[in-house]
Amino acid sequence: MTDSTFEVVYEINGDLGEARSRAESLAVEQSHEFPRVYAPAKADRSLGRVVSVEQVGETRSLAVVSYPEDLTAYEIPQLLVVLLGNASLLPGIRLVDVRVSAEFAHHIAGGPKLGVAGIRRVLDVPKRPLLATALKPVGLDTADIAQEAYDSALGGVDVIKDDQGLGNQVWSPFAERVPAVARAIAKANGETGRHSVYLPTFNPKAGDWQRHIDIAVEAGAGGFLVVPGTAGLDALRYVRDHTPEDFIVYAHPAFLGGWTAGADHGIEPGLLFGHLLRWFGADSVIFPSFGGRFTLSEAVCRSIATRAKDDFAGFAGALPSPGGGMTVERVPELVDFYGLDTMFLIGGALHATGNLVEGARRFRETAETYSD
Amino acid sequence: MTDSTFEVVYEINGDLGEARSRAESLAVEQSHEFPRVYAPAKADRSLGRVVSVEQVGETRSLAVVSYPEDLTAYEIPQLLVVLLGNASLLPGIRLVDVRVSAEFAHHIAGGPKLGVAGIRRVLDVPKRPLLATALKPVGLDTADIAQEAYDSALGGVDVIKDDQGLGNQVWSPFAERVPAVARAIAKANGETGRHSVYLPTFNPKAGDWQRHIDIAVEAGAGGFLVVPGTAGLDALRYVRDHTPEDFIVYAHPAFLGGWTAGADHGIEPGLLFGHLLRWFGADSVIFPSFGGRFTLSEAVCRSIATRAKDDFAGFAGALPSPGGGMTVERVPELVDFYGLDTMFLIGGALHATGNLVEGARRFRETAETYSD
Repeated sequence: MTDSTFEVVYEINGDLGEARSRAESLAVEQSHEFPRVYAPAKADRSLGRVVSVEQVGETRSLAVVSYPEDLTAYEIPQLLVVLLGNASLLPGIRLVDVRVSAEFAHHIAGGPKLGVAGIRRVLDVPKRPLLATALKPVGLDTADIAQEAYDSALGGVDVIKDDQGLGNQVWSPFAERVPAVARAIAKANGETGRHSVYLPTFNPKAGDWQRHIDIAVEAGAGGFLVVPGTAGLDALRYVRDHTPEDFIVYAHPAFLGGWTAGADHGIEPGLLFGHLLRWFGADSVIFPSFGGRFTLSEAVCRSIATRAKDDFAGFAGALPSPGGGMTVERVPELVDFYGLDTMFLIGGALHATGNLVEGARRFRETAETYSD
Repeated sequence: MTDSTFEVVYEINGDLGEARSRAESLAVEQSHEFPRVYAPAKADRSLGRVVSVEQVGETRSLAVVSYPEDLTAYEIPQLLVVLLGNASLLPGIRLVDVRVSAEFAHHIAGGPKLGVAGIRRVLDVPKRPLLATALKPVGLDTADIAQEAYDSALGGVDVIKDDQGLGNQVWSPFAERVPAVARAIAKANGETGRHSVYLPTFNPKAGDWQRHIDIAVEAGAGGFLVVPGTAGLDALRYVRDHTPEDFIVYAHPAFLGGWTAGADHGIEPGLLFGHLLRWFGADSVIFPSFGGRFTLSEAVCRSIATRAKDDFAGFAGALPSPGGGMTVERVPELVDFYGLDTMFLIGGALHATGNLVEGARRFRETAETYSD
C-alpha cells in the first residue's frame, strides 16, 4: 500500500468555470463513481482529485487530475478504467497526457524490452532507417506467403511481418504458416548473410495466447505483430513478458481508430501510440502516416513520432513506424520528416514492379544511402 | 472451407459518387489491403466486395459490403479486424449493421446462454423489471463491501455487482472479496428466501482469466460483470464458454466510448451494445441512459434497447440495462420507455436515504408494482 499518486491530463470542452466543475465530477467519476456526500471517510484513500484547471482556448481547458497509484491495482485493464473508463462515454473529454514515475510505470508494465537500440542490435542495423513489409493479401496459400517472405528477405527488408488480416484462416492456418515462413526467411538469410526476421500476427482468440507464443518461439520467429485494438491492450504486456529477450513487439493500429478519430474525445494519438503502447511493451508502433491512404495530419504524425522516442517513465524509445500507403519514392521526404530512427513500413508498393525481390532491393538501396 | 459470405453495412460521408469510390476502397482495405492489380487471382476467395451503395442524406451514403465468412477465421479478434480494423482509422466511416446467418454467428460465438428468459428463471422474477446495483466506492475494505452487498440483498435487489472500478486493489483483493461478498448475499438470501446474486468484476490482467473464473465459480458467484472495453471484446465469449450454465454475463460499457462518441465514425451504439456484445455472450448490457450523468439521446437509447432484444442471428434477447445516474423516482418513466424486460441499474442513489436496506427496499417495491 502506498500513498503515492500519478497525474492525468484531460482536455475538456468548456470555459474555465465549466471545466472546473466538469473536472471535479470527472475526478469522482473515474475513482469513486459515487456521491461524495454518501462516501465513508475511509474511502478518501481511493479518490481522484483535481490538481489544476487552465483555460487553453475559447472553449477548451486542460484539467490535471491526480489518482492514487493503488487505484490501478497495477494492472493494465484497471489502469484503463481509471484513465478513461466511464469518461470515454462523457462528451467533450479527451485524454492527452499521463504523468507517472518510473517506479509506478514499471510496476504495471515493463516498456520496450528492445526499443530503438535493441531492435538495431538484433537486426544488425546501426544507423540507417529500418525497413518493414507486410505479407499479403490474405487468401494466399502458405507456400505463396513463404515465397513472398523469401523474396522480401532476399531483397533486404529487415522486418517481414504478417498483414494484420493474416490470422488463422483456413487458407493458411497459423500453426502451418508460422514455421513455413520462418524457414523461408532463414533460408534467405543463409544466402545473404543478413538478419531479416519474421513477425507473425498476434491476434488469437482468448485461450490460444500461450499456444501461439509457443508456436512462434519454437519456429524461430523474431517477434510478433500484436494487434492490441482487438486482442486487448494488455496483449502487448503479455507478449513482452512471455517471450525471449530478443523477441520484437511490433504494434499494429487496427481497431484503435475509435480512440483517435475525434478532436474532442478519445485519446491524443501521440499519447496512445507513443506512450501507452510503448509503456505496455511495444518496441515499435505502426501508425498511418500523412500522405497515404489515411488522413492523420503532419502535426499528429510528428506528435506520435516524438512521443514514441521521448523520455517517458525511463523507458527506452520505441521506433515509430509510419505506414498506410507509403512508397519507396517517398522515403527521402519521410526520413527528413521522421529522422533515421524510424521503421518504414511499405507493403503493396514493393510489388509494383511485378518483381518483389527487385522492389525490396530498391527499398533497401534507398535506405542504405543513409548508412555510414 | 466455405464460399458463404456475410454482409456489413457502413455509413460513409459523401454523396453517391464519392461513397461508391470509398466503398470500393473499403472492401479492399478490410480484406486484401493490397492493390487489386498485383493480387494473384487465387486470392479472390478472400476479397470483400461492394454489394450496394445508396445515398441517404445530402452527404451520407450507406454501403453494403460482403466478406467471405472464412476471412474471419471464426474468431472474434479477427472478425473485428474485418469489420472495422483499418477502417476505424479512416475518416467518415461508421459501422452500422452486421448481417450474419445463425450458423456463421454461432461458429464465432454462442450469444447469451441465458438472455432475458434465462435471467428471469435464474433470479425467479417472471414479470417485473429486474433490479441491479453496484458495490462502491472503491477504497472500502472487503467487510464494508460485504455489508453493502448484504444490505442490498436484504432490501431486495436482484443483481448485486461490483463497481467496474473494483478490481484487484490492495484495499479489497479479488480473491478475498469475491468469497466474502458471495457469502454475505447467501446469508441475506437465507433470511429472505429470495435469489439475489453477486456478479464480481471480470477485468483481470491477461494470464489471470481462468484463475478469476475459478475463484468466482468456487465462491458461488452468480455471474460476472465483464468489462470488454478493457479486457477485450473476446472476454465475453471466454467467460460465457468457461462458466456454468446459469452464470450471468453482464457487460459494462467502460472504455467503449471511443466507439460511440462520434456521429461519423466508430460503431452505431445499438449495433455495439445490442448486437455485438450479445453475439459475443452478454446476457445483459449496461449503457448510460438518457437523463443521467451521460448524454446518449433517447433515440440512441431506444436503438440499444431494441437491438438488444430483436431477432439477431437466432440469439436469445439480452436485457438492456440502463444506468449512469438513474434514480428510483425515475423507474416508472423508464419502464414506460424501456418496457418490463429491462434491468435497471441504480448505484449511488440507493444510498441517498442514509439507509441502504431502505433504499434497496424502495427500489424493489417500485418494481413490484409491475408484478402480476
